[in-house]
Amino acid sequence: MSSSQPLRGVVPPVCTPLDAAGEVDTASLTRLVEHLVAGGVHGLFALGSSSEVAFLTDRQRAVALETVIEAVAGRVPVLAGVIDMTTPRMLVHAEAARKAGADALVATAPFYARTHPVEITRHFRILRERGDLPLYAYDLPVCVHSKLSVAMVRELAEDGTLTGLKDSSGDEGGLRRLIVELGGRDGRTAGPAPSFSILTGSELTVDAALLAGADGVVPGLGNVDPAGYVRLYEAMREGDLKRAVEEQERLVQLFGMVDAGPEGEMGRNSSAMGAFKHALRLLGVVTAGTTAGSQIQLDEAAIAHVERHLRGAGLLPVR
Amino acid sequence: MSSSQPLRGVVPPVCTPLDAAGEVDTASLTRLVEHLVAGGVHGLFALGSSSEVAFLTDRQRAVALETVIEAVAGRVPVLAGVIDMTTPRMLVHAEAARKAGADALVATAPFYARTHPVEITRHFRILRERGDLPLYAYDLPVCVHSKLSVAMVRELAEDGTLTGLKDSSGDEGGLRRLIVELGGRDGRTAGPAPSFSILTGSELTVDAALLAGADGVVPGLGNVDPAGYVRLYEAMREGDLKRAVEEQERLVQLFGMVDAGPEGEMGRNSSAMGAFKHALRLLGVVTAGTTAGSQIQLDEAAIAHVERHLRGAGLLPVR
Amino acid sequence: MSSSQPLRGVVPPVCTPLDAAGEVDTASLTRLVEHLVAGGVHGLFALGSSSEVAFLTDRQRAVALETVIEAVAGRVPVLAGVIDMTTPRMLVHAEAARKAGADALVATAPFYARTHPVEITRHFRILRERGDLPLYAYDLPVCVHSKLSVAMVRELAEDGTLTGLKDSSGDEGGLRRLIVELGGRDGRTAGPAPSFSILTGSELTVDAALLAGADGVVPGLGNVDPAGYVRLYEAMREGDLKRAVEEQERLVQLFGMVDAGPEGEMGRNSSAMGAFKHALRLLGVVTAGTTAGSQIQLDEAAIAHVERHLRGAGLLPVR
Amino acid sequence: MSSSQPLRGVVPPVCTPLDAAGEVDTASLTRLVEHLVAGGVHGLFALGSSSEVAFLTDRQRAVALETVIEAVAGRVPVLAGVIDMTTPRMLVHAEAARKAGADALVATAPFYARTHPVEITRHFRILRERGDLPLYAYDLPVCVHSKLSVAMVRELAEDGTLTGLKDSSGDEGGLRRLIVELGGRDGRTAGPAPSFSILTGSELTVDAALLAGADGVVPGLGNVDPAGYVRLYEAMREGDLKRAVEEQERLVQLFGMVDAGPEGEMGRNSSAMGAFKHALRLLGVVTAGTTAGSQIQLDEAAIAHVERHLRGAGLLPVR
Repeated sequence: MSSSQPLRGVVPPVCTPLDAAGEVDTASLTRLVEHLVAGGVHGLFALGSSSEVAFLTDRQRAVALETVIEAVAGRVPVLAGVIDMTTPRMLVHAEAARKAGADALVATAPFYARTHPVEITRHFRILRERGDLPLYAYDLPVCVHSKLSVAMVRELAEDGTLTGLKDSSGDEGGLRRLIVELGGRDGRTAGPAPSFSILTGSELTVDAALLAGADGVVPGLGNVDPAGYVRLYEAMREGDLKRAVEEQERLVQLFGMVDAGPEGEMGRNSSAMGAFKHALRLLGVVTAGTTAGSQIQLDEAAIAHVERHLRGAGLLPVR
Repeated sequence: MSSSQPLRGVVPPVCTPLDAAGEVDTASLTRLVEHLVAGGVHGLFALGSSSEVAFLTDRQRAVALETVIEAVAGRVPVLAGVIDMTTPRMLVHAEAARKAGADALVATAPFYARTHPVEITRHFRILRERGDLPLYAYDLPVCVHSKLSVAMVRELAEDGTLTGLKDSSGDEGGLRRLIVELGGRDGRTAGPAPSFSILTGSELTVDAALLAGADGVVPGLGNVDPAGYVRLYEAMREGDLKRAVEEQERLVQLFGMVDAGPEGEMGRNSSAMGAFKHALRLLGVVTAGTTAGSQIQLDEAAIAHVERHLRGAGLLPVR
Repeated sequence: MSSSQPLRGVVPPVCTPLDAAGEVDTASLTRLVEHLVAGGVHGLFALGSSSEVAFLTDRQRAVALETVIEAVAGRVPVLAGVIDMTTPRMLVHAEAARKAGADALVATAPFYARTHPVEITRHFRILRERGDLPLYAYDLPVCVHSKLSVAMVRELAEDGTLTGLKDSSGDEGGLRRLIVELGGRDGRTAGPAPSFSILTGSELTVDAALLAGADGVVPGLGNVDPAGYVRLYEAMREGDLKRAVEEQERLVQLFGMVDAGPEGEMGRNSSAMGAFKHALRLLGVVTAGTTAGSQIQLDEAAIAHVERHLRGAGLLPVR
Repeated sequence: MSSSQPLRGVVPPVCTPLDAAGEVDTASLTRLVEHLVAGGVHGLFALGSSSEVAFLTDRQRAVALETVIEAVAGRVPVLAGVIDMTTPRMLVHAEAARKAGADALVATAPFYARTHPVEITRHFRILRERGDLPLYAYDLPVCVHSKLSVAMVRELAEDGTLTGLKDSSGDEGGLRRLIVELGGRDGRTAGPAPSFSILTGSELTVDAALLAGADGVVPGLGNVDPAGYVRLYEAMREGDLKRAVEEQERLVQLFGMVDAGPEGEMGRNSSAMGAFKHALRLLGVVTAGTTAGSQIQLDEAAIAHVERHLRGAGLLPVR
């Protein structure tokens, strides 16, 4: 990840398989990394929201990150999330990530205590300075309850604080404004922030984001079907719109697996995480579909729902 | 608007020019309709949010709607908003719209009183039945504070209650799921809802929405630059992505006019509406840039900001 | 309502009984007014949220308001809500209320279009000036989606724009700050806003609000048990805390009727309005428990739930 | 804290004084504990939101908690917050608290990942079982973005999972329903949850909460004026309403210190925390008014604002 070469392509946020005791299943995690690299992905995002990082103790975070870095063995860059409530706590995670050999850090705005844009800007500057690794901002209002403004990201991109943005805000209009302000789809690489990497977390509209000028995608669903996202990315790069849209539509249908639990009877997180993990189990990649902490586990009907979506997308042999 | 032919293309939500007394300036409104039709638009949405419908009395609504319908003289279809708090009040507006000769109705979910999805579904069914015109659902959570679910819109599309959707929710992922569930970009016209028209209100990502399979766009900014949106629409239809993206990027820059007031010193609505109306004044289309009700008016600096954006987009001669 | 005498006491927001055709049942409404006045209330709030004003057409609003004013025949003052989206539309309602003989107007901030505090302040000033009646601000963020600040209400109280506040924000801390800033519980009547009337809409904590220095209460539940709220008010005035708290606790239990529908299967509004109206029917005050518009109606089980709460509170003979 | 004796009275959430290097200033913290105990408080809440716990590393948390427990030396019980994103992470903090000698744990619902009521219930049960200390639920939607329902708290109170509730939700109506459901103000001690302690975090309406039947208060402002809150509590216990309301009104005015920064130029948290800490510095209790992490510090004008409020409340000699 040289600083003049922005990260591009498919960068899945790696799930964390758990064993029966709720500990990180390192053998399964190693197999998952192989599954992703074999799918052709261009990088990995460890300890992102899809890793259930919020549910992992610091010790478990270390095990997960080290397992991913060891398994990937330098084949693609590894970004490490430092998710926590505030700057001082994120700096502790940053130090652990640096020691483990991560290539870059990914940080949200502070959360829990109500904050202010000036404090968020300062937060990223401190993380960049003391974290001592390239820094990606992670815009995720659904978890963090504040939105990074176009003006803030632009300022932090232009002064070199940020190396990139992972945009999971769902605000595609704002993302478009950012891209245009940074020079537009074609001009951006020649613009004031030549190495700024814009990755969308909106896994259902990747074709649209790439059309607009995003550099890549961080798809939670990419754990299940990395090759599908890679095909979508390649089709867009080659200008083959028809193939890209077809691939995206197949992935949209596959994504329906996240509505696994009976409506209103599961949390959005436990339903989606459970679906991804059980899909990986059904595909033979991981040993168990267990989710972390106090989350509701998928029941038989929900697992059947996941299986139907895998078959529908051609990922399991149709019986 | 035959029922087997869905509405496609650019359908601007027509602004309502006001005179010094705060009444509808019908001469300016007539000129605005000409400006739009001359720009090549495929339909008009009268009494939408951009008309400041929420600020117009029933008498003023009638004047505005009748002026638009008379000016357009059947050249393109006219959709009429029936924005109000609940079904019974919307039915009063529906009757007025029908008498005025509107081609279709556009209705949000009920608002003010907290509601329930079952009540929203029933609301649309009653409007369709008693409103006696084709009905578009208007998904606008920023004003209405509830979101129409994919499942609800699909059900109401498939049973014929709804003729179309104007999606201003900003939830592009949800919109994509709807399109896929209705048959996908290519299959949709052959699917169970052949005449269902999906129009996006996300004016900054129109190329992306059309790529995904939307039928058209309802752009507030289309008041100012209807021809630009028509060029964008045509470029996408012709598969000329490069031209489409360039046009979209120009429109994104033009849209920057809505940040007209000093940050924090204007409302989002007064700033955007004031920008559109002053832009129309600067373009010679309407007489005054006044916004309705108790809204803050643009000051000199804000008007200069609007003018800069018009010049930047090539809509005013560069001085 | 002389201007030097603030409104004090219990001022129920009058429900609107409907007949089978969904029209205002004026005979039932007249009986409801008698029920309230006989209960000892100190004023009536017509066309408030509990009247389902959002669901009534302008014609129905006129019928409801005129019926209330005629039935009350000057025995207590009648405040009239002018609920609508913006200033110009509220002015139309204000004129109707003035002609009907209302004693004061009650207005929320503008809603639907996003607004700004300066625009809200201006809104109330215009309503006061052109509405030509004493004006109460109605703070109801759950419907209006903005909160009136302490500073704004204080400014509008001190300059005479507002005659009073109906606070249904649930922000008891903010209300306390307002009371203290206006001179404190005891000093307020001698302070800069001698005639400013603070009415809480928080019907479950009336004893607490009166302790803090509020002047009265606008309880939706007061439709069902006006005499209970009057006893509570009198007990607090007489300093009989024990009796006040007991009465409040009985009313809290009675209020449980609003959880009438199966959880998640009714809207909060249809459940509460249905409960109040069916309670009035069971008490013999009104003919039907029907709610307006597309709202879900109470089923048998929900009505039984209401009846149990009436019996529990001693309002129906225990069988 | 025997299990048959609920915690009652004033239980301030202890601030964390910091030195110039941003580390816990243990000498100042020891003086703060003395200030609070000397003020007559009935317990201390260590590592609550007012401790800036979200900004402290695990090492700093340990220092702060151990310092408080050592300084208090058993004179009053010490509750320890275990604030973190999820159950597994809170269990790590719980173990640290138990080893440090805390008397009880205080836990919010999980946050960051979207959750579900069933998961929240399970979360508290796991914390109670494995945390091995009495457990208080901390209802703080402004930070946690979910609200504990009356039904959930009641269930967890009745089955012994929870020993108490710290309610900072601002939902006084909901709190009243809980009190009534648990037996009412007078009956509660004889009811099904005899030892359940209800503490309000609404520091501006303590008289009202005690009137309603709350057991005590956890006031952030109690760091600055513990004796004032103790007088308020004692006045309510003695039934001296007049004195209680006067004390509460004085404290409401004192609380005005939290609006320290220029409006819009500080976060709500940095403004309030900075005000409390600078007030403690001006009172000679702590050495510096510094707040943690990337928060904005009070400037001269803001400190003068704090000082004025201290003088106004009679806490500093009037110059």
